[in-house]
Amino acid sequence: MQFQSSDIKAMDSRRRAAFINSVSGFKSANLVGTVNAKGQSNLAIMSSAVHLGSNPPLLALIIRPSSEEHQTLANILDSGCYSLNHVSASMVEQGHQTAAKYPEAISEFDATGLSPAWHSDFGAPMVAEASIKLGLTLREHHELEINGTNLVIGEVVLADVPSGCVGEDGALDLVSADTVALTGLDTYCRAATFKRMAYAKPHLAPQVLWDSSAQ
Amino acid sequence: MQFQSSDIKAMDSRRRAAFINSVSGFKSANLVGTVNAKGQSNLAIMSSAVHLGSNPPLLALIIRPSSEEHQTLANILDSGCYSLNHVSASMVEQGHQTAAKYPEAISEFDATGLSPAWHSDFGAPMVAEASIKLGLTLREHHELEINGTNLVIGEVVLADVPSGCVGEDGALDLVSADTVALTGLDTYCRAATFKRMAYAKPHLAPQVLWDSSAQ
Repeated sequence: MQFQSSDIKAMDSRRRAAFINSVSGFKSANLVGTVNAKGQSNLAIMSSAVHLGSNPPLLALIIRPSSEEHQTLANILDSGCYSLNHVSASMVEQGHQTAAKYPEAISEFDATGLSPAWHSDFGAPMVAEASIKLGLTLREHHELEINGTNLVIGEVVLADVPSGCVGEDGALDLVSADTVALTGLDTYCRAATFKRMAYAKPHLAPQVLWDSSAQ
Repeated sequence: MQFQSSDIKAMDSRRRAAFINSVSGFKSANLVGTVNAKGQSNLAIMSSAVHLGSNPPLLALIIRPSSEEHQTLANILDSGCYSLNHVSASMVEQGHQTAAKYPEAISEFDATGLSPAWHSDFGAPMVAEASIKLGLTLREHHELEINGTNLVIGEVVLADVPSGCVGEDGALDLVSADTVALTGLDTYCRAATFKRMAYAKPHLAPQVLWDSSAQ
């Protein structure tokens, strides 16, 4: 089934949003924790975290210019820090609810019942219930002219993870952490490891290190 | 288990790459198809596609300055178009193999056995075996000063998807398309829908539209 540019443009806006939000593949689901100068906390679900580099350890976030995400952006630019907290299966309902348009004076922590966790040496709230919590400091911010979205680049300065999730090679086992994947705007998925591959080399055939069908 | 900034910096580079590549959560796995002016095709696996907006329908890619991904970037800048093709479970081994550092004169299509598919009105090769194929035209390119990575913004001008995967609301069912999710650098996962949530509103409790445990 083919959609041309004109078909996509002709969709009504909700349908196009559902379609385009699903075409890139599975997405991360993170709760972004921030605080303003008055101590008011904010928590917002975002699916736009992307790896930028590991040395220095950088992640980027796309933050939309909507009213809901605007508070998160304002807090990051003001405080210079933010947390990323993986949504796990047990937190899907509360995590999704942070997308509701609460008045600025209401903290999504209070509204959803998720608990703020403060690390002594980090200035933004984390989510106590999240098994994987990251602390980032703002490194760069660009407003993208093309559609007014914001590219926020942060350095990972703190990572709080279950010790059992750290693999021999240093990678985190997100399946055992029960981190969910998001598709589209509203569909949360659990993942199961299918295949783990060896580092690819041109003169070698693909080598499967672990295969679910062999277990 | 806590990692401070100094702990992350002290990791050896492979360990830090595995760690930081896994901290953002699940990622998409896409094969990026391009062609140079001589007609030489290139195919590269990337996990950095991110939604930028639906009107116009924009996706961003982070392309690293490495030799492997450089050819993809050069082709995009030269031809102005590229394809994104979801890696499905049946293509994991071939898709992962495109990450090998093949000489420029070797097409990853030939090297891996994946088949180029050309649409009459689109200038970059798609992957015939992929169930979800997108055609994008280049809209913006920024080299990010912080680490030399490239932000490539493209508009979705073509989408070729299985008709059975298009939901009532327009979202694609990536689970039925057998699209995989990636974690870290090498671990491919299959997904199962866990919960689908209603649009969140501040005065309503979270509403589950579909729950795997209720089936």
